[in-house]
Parts: sequence; C-alpha cells; structure tokens
Amino acid sequence: MTIECVAIIGLGLIGGSIGLAVQEMLPDIATTGWDADTEVRRRAAGRGLVGMVCETVAEAVGEADLVILCVPVGAMGHAAEAIAPHLKPGTIVSDVGSSKNSVGAALSAALPDAVIIPAHPVAGTEKSGPEAGFAELFRHRWCIVTPGNDAPQDAVDAVSGFWEGLGAKVEVMDADHHDLVLAVTSHIPHLIAYTIVGTASDLEDVTRGEVIKYSAGGFRDFTRIAASNPTMWRDVFLSNRDAVLEVLGRFTEDLSLLQRAIRNGDGDTLFDLFERTRTIRRSIIEEGQDDARPDFGRKDH
Amino acid sequence: MTIECVAIIGLGLIGGSIGLAVQEMLPDIATTGWDADTEVRRRAAGRGLVGMVCETVAEAVGEADLVILCVPVGAMGHAAEAIAPHLKPGTIVSDVGSSKNSVGAALSAALPDAVIIPAHPVAGTEKSGPEAGFAELFRHRWCIVTPGNDAPQDAVDAVSGFWEGLGAKVEVMDADHHDLVLAVTSHIPHLIAYTIVGTASDLEDVTRGEVIKYSAGGFRDFTRIAASNPTMWRDVFLSNRDAVLEVLGRFTEDLSLLQRAIRNGDGDTLFDLFERTRTIRRSIIEEGQDDARPDFGRKDH
Ligand SMILES: NC(=O)c1ccc[n+]([C@@H]2O[C@H](COP(=O)([O-])OP(=O)(O)OC[C@H]3O[C@@H](n4cnc5c(N)ncnc54)[C@H](OP(=O)(O)O)[C@@H]3O)[C@@H](O)[C@H]2O)c1
Ligand SMILES: NC(=O)c1ccc[n+]([C@@H]2O[C@H](COP(=O)([O-])OP(=O)(O)OC[C@H]3O[C@@H](n4cnc5c(N)ncnc54)[C@H](OP(=O)(O)O)[C@@H]3O)[C@@H](O)[C@H]2O)c1
Repeated sequence: MTIECVAIIGLGLIGGSIGLAVQEMLPDIATTGWDADTEVRRRAAGRGLVGMVCETVAEAVGEADLVILCVPVGAMGHAAEAIAPHLKPGTIVSDVGSSKNSVGAALSAALPDAVIIPAHPVAGTEKSGPEAGFAELFRHRWCIVTPGNDAPQDAVDAVSGFWEGLGAKVEVMDADHHDLVLAVTSHIPHLIAYTIVGTASDLEDVTRGEVIKYSAGGFRDFTRIAASNPTMWRDVFLSNRDAVLEVLGRFTEDLSLLQRAIRNGDGDTLFDLFERTRTIRRSIIEEGQDDARPDFGRKDH
Repeated sequence: MTIECVAIIGLGLIGGSIGLAVQEMLPDIATTGWDADTEVRRRAAGRGLVGMVCETVAEAVGEADLVILCVPVGAMGHAAEAIAPHLKPGTIVSDVGSSKNSVGAALSAALPDAVIIPAHPVAGTEKSGPEAGFAELFRHRWCIVTPGNDAPQDAVDAVSGFWEGLGAKVEVMDADHHDLVLAVTSHIPHLIAYTIVGTASDLEDVTRGEVIKYSAGGFRDFTRIAASNPTMWRDVFLSNRDAVLEVLGRFTEDLSLLQRAIRNGDGDTLFDLFERTRTIRRSIIEEGQDDARPDFGRKDH
C-alpha cells in the first residue's frame, strides 16, 4: 500500500508540522490541506504548510490515499462528517487526537465504511495555530497507533511507515491502554499545571506581581504547559474523562500522604520519595526524551 | 560598610555559584570557603569555587566581613554554631536558605550577638554539589532579603549591594511574607512535581518504561524539578510547614473543582480556567523570568 497523496484537515500546530515534515522528509508524497477557518487557510498558504491549501474540503481529500484529521478532539466527529462524501474508496482516515477511545468511536460513527487507523504523535509545544508548526516536531518522539481489532494490517503498516518517515518511533497499542498511559504522562500533568497556576493567581495575600517575579523557583516550569491551547485541552479532559479521573484519584491520595508527612514532621517519608523520583529523570534523559543541559537541549531534540 | 572578604560555608550549588560569581563580578572581594565534607572541599578547591578553600571553619570565617551559610535549611543552626566562636566583631552573617522564618530563628539562637541579615536568591537548578555551580546563576534573578526589625540599615544595604553586584535584583520583605510567597512559587510546585512523578512510578497498569517513553506529552517538565536535591527539599517542607500546608489546602480545593467539572462534563469551567492561566505565562516572559523560545532561552538567562 503506497501513500502518494496526504490530505491534512486542520492546519494548526500539529497539522502544519505534519505538512512541513512531509515536504521536507517525504518529498515524493503530495500534500493538500484544508481548515474550517478562512483566515487559517490564508496564513497556512502563506507559510507553505502543505503543497496546496484547498478552498473546499472536497478538493482537499478527493485524491488522498491518507487523510489526517488534525482538529481538536471535540471536532473530530464534525470533521469526519465533512470529509465523508468526498473520499475515494480505500482511503485511509487517520487523526492525531490526544485521546483515542472517544475519537475512534466518533470516526467509526461518521465513516462506517472507511479504513480508520487512529494515531497520536506524542509531541507538542504550548503554541497553537498555523504559525506554530515546524518540521522537526516529531523527530525522536513516539507516535502511538491505535487500530481497531478489524483494521487491515497493510493500512496499519502504511500509517506506521508514514510516521517513521517523519522521524518518529511507532508503537501500536489499544485505545484504552493509550488513554490510561496518556492520562499519566500528559493529561494529569497539564491539569495539575493549570490548577496551580490558577491557585497562584487567586491568592489574596500574594500578588500576581510577586508570583511572576519569583517564578524562577519552580513555578515557571508549570506556566509553560498551563499556557497550552484551551480548546484542545478542554476537549481532552472531556473525552478522556474516566482515565483522567482514575489517575487523578491516585494522585490526590499520594498528595494526602505527603501532606500528612509534612504536618507530622516526618522527614523520612519525604526524603524517601524525593530520592526515588530522581531515578525516573535519569531514565528519561537516557531514553532521549529530555536532556540534562540547562537549556534542556530543546534546540536539537 | 565595605565588604572585603566573604566566607562561604557549604560549597554546593549555591555556595559554589556565589564563589564563582564573586571572583568574576566582584574581583576586589576576597573569598574563602569551607564545607563539612572533606571530599566536597577537595572538589571545590579543584574547581576554584573560592579563592581559598580552608581546612577549618575558624580559618574560613576569621577574617570575613560577611559569612554566607549555604547549607541545607535543616543544617543552618549547626553551621551557625560552628562559626560562632570564630567571628570577628561586626561580621555580618547571612544565608541563602529557601525558607526564612525558621532559619532566621535558628541563626539568632546560635548567634545572639551577631548582625544577621538572612537572604534567599530565587535561582537554582535541579543539580547539587560542588560541580553544579556557575557564575551566571543569579543574573536577572531576584534575591529576597529578610532582615529582622532591629537589623542595622547599613548591613541590609551591604548585603543588598553584594547581591546586586552578582547580577541579582534585590527585594526586601519580612520573613513571614517570604515564606508564603515562596510556598506558592517554589515549594508547592516542587511538592506537586514530586508527587506526580511518584504516582506515575507506582501504577500497576502503566509500566515505568511507558511513562518514560511518552514523557514528552508534559510529564518530563515535572521530572526536572522532581530530580532536585532530596535533603534540601525535605528540609524546606519541614521548615516552612505552615505556609506550605496553607497553599496546599487552596490547591487541593481548586483541584476538586476541576475534578467535578470533568466528572460533570462542564467544559465551560475548564475552558475559562485554561484561558485565564495563559496570561500569567505572558507576564513571566515579559518580566524576563522565562523565555518563549523552544529552548526556553536557558542558555543566556
Ligand atoms: N498541541 C499539542 O501538543 C498536541 C500534541 C499531540 C496531539 N495533539 C492533537 O492535535 C489536534 C490539533 O491540535 P493543535 O495543537 O494542532 O491545535 P491548533 O493549533 O489549534 O489547530 C487546530 C486547527 O483545526 C481547526 N479546526 C477546528 N475545527 C475544525 C473543523 N471541524 N474542520 C477543520 N478545521 C478545524 C482550527 O481552526 P480554529 O483555530 O479557527 O478553530 C485550527 O486551525 C488535537 O486533536 C490535539 O489533541 C496536540
Ligand atoms: N538548589 C536550589 O535551587 C536553591 C535555590 C536557592 C536557595 N537554595 C538554598 O541553598 C542552600 C544550599 O543548597 P544547595 O542547592 O547549594 O545544596 P548542595 O549543593 O547540596 O550544597 C550544600 C553543601 O553544604 C554541605 N553541608 C551540609 N551541612 C553542612 C554543615 N553543617 N556545615 C558545612 N557544610 C555543610 C553539604 O555537604 P554534603 O553534601 O556532604 O552534606 C553540601 O556540600 C539550601 O539552604 C537551599 O535551601 C537552594
């Protein structure tokens, strides 16, 4: 199964990065794109995010072997309905949504006859929109593919090969497990960051000016992810509710234990945890998912 | 009041950075240093962290106009007792501890006759030890000075001027307020980061390997601060208990509200918070305490 033309629906951070990456790393594949927003289409064309920014969704997907929906999770169903009448037979429909169970269900409902291979590139920044994308976003990052049980293997291979072509490493897993893993490694960290930044903004005894001034003590690391796209993240929490609530329950239990240790002056419990959490950092650096340099090496990976 | 000789007690990240910074930015001031650990003294001398690494505390502080205690908060009392017999009259004793109320009390108890001007440079990394320091650590960062009510103004000015000489911006405030502000901007963020990293390591259904692989979704930002010095942070939570528990109470209330919003599918509440928290990020970047570039500009400030 060869992919000759990819259509990207939604030309923001992820859609734009895919378009740029394909043009740079898989130059034999033609790219078309469409976004519901006229202004986004104009800016996407200006940056050359895809080979051809189309004025209609029909035009964008009509010749595609692979259509990738890059819209917020809550808009996946609408986007799938919009492309449905215009697909040629055999076209693979994929997406990049941050939660997979509910997106898989929405795509299947809107496209009962299509070949659906959901995927999630675990890579991003706190920016959004057509100016935010860059071709290297997926390099050395993982892309999780979550095909249903009856998905044809050659389509799974085609989507996997496509992502590998953009520099990503691919793992296949079922949607339920994806949603639990990402609740831990992405959704709960974002929820916590949003919460603490909100808490800090609302205190009466500490001004916002003070919070900003002294943010270098640790707080600023949270503000980066708490500056992420509100629409995207609202949709993630609503669509991955069960897994998010489950992991959140564990987190609040663990936090209560530490709260009690602080109240009781139990330094050993604190020290033991703080010692244990160091090792995970080391493994992340060894696995190439972060960097020990002061600039986190964000420049080259 | 002129400072001609500074003694640094504790030659780890902060002590070492002060020593390097003085030699580079205030070269007229002589520096001596001592650490309780022989091996640390040896490595500190090897890196030239101070002009003279001394074998005894007496030698290190005997000629100093300013002694800065750079040991974990829980060791401040011991360090103060160790220097007490060797200070010349009029020497200012300062420190860099991350909580100020309990440290101020410990210093006053050990040094009833000394001029005590506590301070806290709000700058750091997750590294520790004599290899971790660098001269630019304090540049563009704030240093909070928390003198007691009866502290002589010329000593406050001398300590403030010293930190400004190392590139820091100085703010004077009372110790109670410092402890509350830092609970928000530093201590609670660290506690939360330690907790979520611990939670993620302990799940049965998600392996540590998976957590590490998919950490680029947000989790890795937390692992950096959860890799910080366990001794230092144990001491911070034990010594700033009241303020930490107060802010933690607010945080868990706010988290419960979000938990309920997710359970009820209340997207508006989520969106409103996520929209609000973005603006704080912008202010932090404008104030120069972080950077919008993908590498966070860690290289130059
Ligand atoms: N950001 C990340 O870190 C990250 C990482 C991995 C996966 N993802 C997933 O990637 C997807 C896109 O996220 P993003 O960060 O790229 O967001 P983004 O930058 O906001 O881009 C999304 C684009 O889709 C457009 N859009 C919305 N509804 C549409 C529809 N029905 N049809 C066509 N276009 C539509 C939006 O236009 P308007 O802005 O005008 O509405 C916007 O231009 C989401 O599902 C997200 O969960 C994100
Ligand atoms: N790290 C930060 O981000 C940061 C930021 C602002 C302020 N601070 C404050 O700075 C202080 C030092 O932190 P750090 O990060 O520099 O820690 P560090 O790198 O571990 O250095 C502390 C040094 O003090 C030594 N020491 C311990 N007890 C001593 C004693 N009684 N007398 C003499 N030396 C002793 C330690 O030796 P051993 O290791 O052998 O015990 C170690 O070499 C703490 O109070 C901390 O709260 C830290």
